[in-house]
Amino acid sequence: MKVSILGGGGFLGRKLAARLAADGTLGGKQVTALTLFDMAEPPAPPGAPFPVTTLAGDVVDLPEAAIPPGTEVVFHLAAVVSAAAEADYDLGRRVNLRGTDAVIDACRRLVAAGGPAPRVVFTSSVASFSATQADTLPDDARQVPGNSYGAQKAAAELILADASRRGFLDAVSIRLPTVIVRPGRPNKAASSFFSAIVREPLLGLDTDLPVADDFAVWVCSPRRAVDWLLHAAGMDTSTMGLDRSINPPGISTTVAHLLQALEEVQPGAGAKVHRVEDAAIAAIVGTWPPAFEPLRARTLGFAPHEPLVEVVRAFVEDDLAATRAERGLD
Amino acid sequence: MKVSILGGGGFLGRKLAARLAADGTLGGKQVTALTLFDMAEPPAPPGAPFPVTTLAGDVVDLPEAAIPPGTEVVFHLAAVVSAAAEADYDLGRRVNLRGTDAVIDACRRLVAAGGPAPRVVFTSSVASFSATQADTLPDDARQVPGNSYGAQKAAAELILADASRRGFLDAVSIRLPTVIVRPGRPNKAASSFFSAIVREPLLGLDTDLPVADDFAVWVCSPRRAVDWLLHAAGMDTSTMGLDRSINPPGISTTVAHLLQALEEVQPGAGAKVHRVEDAAIAAIVGTWPPAFEPLRARTLGFAPHEPLVEVVRAFVEDDLAATRAERGLD
Repeated sequence: MKVSILGGGGFLGRKLAARLAADGTLGGKQVTALTLFDMAEPPAPPGAPFPVTTLAGDVVDLPEAAIPPGTEVVFHLAAVVSAAAEADYDLGRRVNLRGTDAVIDACRRLVAAGGPAPRVVFTSSVASFSATQADTLPDDARQVPGNSYGAQKAAAELILADASRRGFLDAVSIRLPTVIVRPGRPNKAASSFFSAIVREPLLGLDTDLPVADDFAVWVCSPRRAVDWLLHAAGMDTSTMGLDRSINPPGISTTVAHLLQALEEVQPGAGAKVHRVEDAAIAAIVGTWPPAFEPLRARTLGFAPHEPLVEVVRAFVEDDLAATRAERGLD
Repeated sequence: MKVSILGGGGFLGRKLAARLAADGTLGGKQVTALTLFDMAEPPAPPGAPFPVTTLAGDVVDLPEAAIPPGTEVVFHLAAVVSAAAEADYDLGRRVNLRGTDAVIDACRRLVAAGGPAPRVVFTSSVASFSATQADTLPDDARQVPGNSYGAQKAAAELILADASRRGFLDAVSIRLPTVIVRPGRPNKAASSFFSAIVREPLLGLDTDLPVADDFAVWVCSPRRAVDWLLHAAGMDTSTMGLDRSINPPGISTTVAHLLQALEEVQPGAGAKVHRVEDAAIAAIVGTWPPAFEPLRARTLGFAPHEPLVEVVRAFVEDDLAATRAERGLD
């Protein structure tokens, strides 16, 4: 089975490639080739039992080699993220919409040449919804986005579902929760603090909390996000009908519970978190739904989420040492 | 007030232009200039009390003159319709999505030059939903389209709502029911027969009915559609929030009731309608919702619909003679 990861150099793309290299299989089938595509040439995962091709380019001018003939699964993770799409409308529209069109056209060409319709696993986002802190969204909730990133993701879901109906490809769109704990550094993204309030104290560093302790948020771990992407790549889509989008089973938590999990893993770490209200950040994240009732995802076999304390422990196991080294903290 | 109609040569565009010419005003303000834009140069409405500019071109390469500086209202009716978008994916995507991007960019340029954000009245469609014949959709129903036209319209709504949030323009998207009775000839829309079963018998011509008599459909008259477009152009959008889309108050009827209204207006006309099942057409229109509960539209002041028999009478009054002449039936 040939597999491509578009956005293969990003946070989730690298974790997904590493997992494929470790497993050697996907959905019970041997992976025979992996192509990693990103703006800058992505690193190949070490020790892969199959050939890995790495390519740099623009997703809108997608080179044929990014989705070579015979590709069965495409992970389409290439995106301009929330803060960047808000800051640069043209860039967000170009990558998040025209880029998705380019993926569709590449798959169409493979089908037109006689190949099977590739499974396309697309990462949509909780940011494609809006809600209040009191809401729990059902599976049939409408997407009324409050940001350009979310609007572009919701539009791309529609276009991918239509392309599936037409047989150009076979899409599963997963609306990822806020993924915590992200490695690396704090950034200007509105959601950055959800990772920072765990990561920075574990690195021995001070960090600011811009919202109240009882602020509720819908999250998932990088490990679980990768599990869901792999499940979506191998699952039977014949019962999905016209609706190719999934609200996966994340966890609804509060900042207070997240800090409690941090304390459990490293007692005293919470003292590094300082309450510094930021109305601008609170206004943005305050429109994201804090909870879903993801019944459809469960029916379709998406794995339930591990407890919150394991999310913190997974960061310590998977990413703490590398983050420490990357930031020169050793 | 300067007004532009994109798709000004089409069925609704011409009726809208004629109405503006008759009224001379829009939302209580004097119309000072009207620009009509379409693929072929649209006809100017006779007797307009303001200058009318007519332009031909491609909406994707929208000329600056199509939305000149100072334009306060843009009616964006330019579209590739349902059957055509299904037959030619690239054409539908180009006009229905890239065309909407071009309208957004034209409005952005006016705002960037210091002008106010133009009101953009966009015609979306009932075809952006899917449902069974047993469903009545509430205002917060999700759009899960079963055709490329509907998917493109739903995606365009999302992008226009986001552009409104960003202040590039001020959009109201109206999800028009199947508009009956259309003048002219049968066309490529899958819904063409809903008009043909009234129009053709009134012209003394035979016509085919591809679905069962108890088939339920959500319709509106051209008169009412024009009223709604004008209301959307002048209404206060400040209470709409992020959601710029409206399910207007159409009527839910059946083919049988429509034929009954035809009989009431012209006894015996129904004999010209021949039951000829067409599975392809039935498959497309069978996914369109037959009924809505349009509470939001009523709150926002959209006019309720006239009874069905008046829809047939309005066609006789407004369009029968012209259609007869156009088709050389006199």
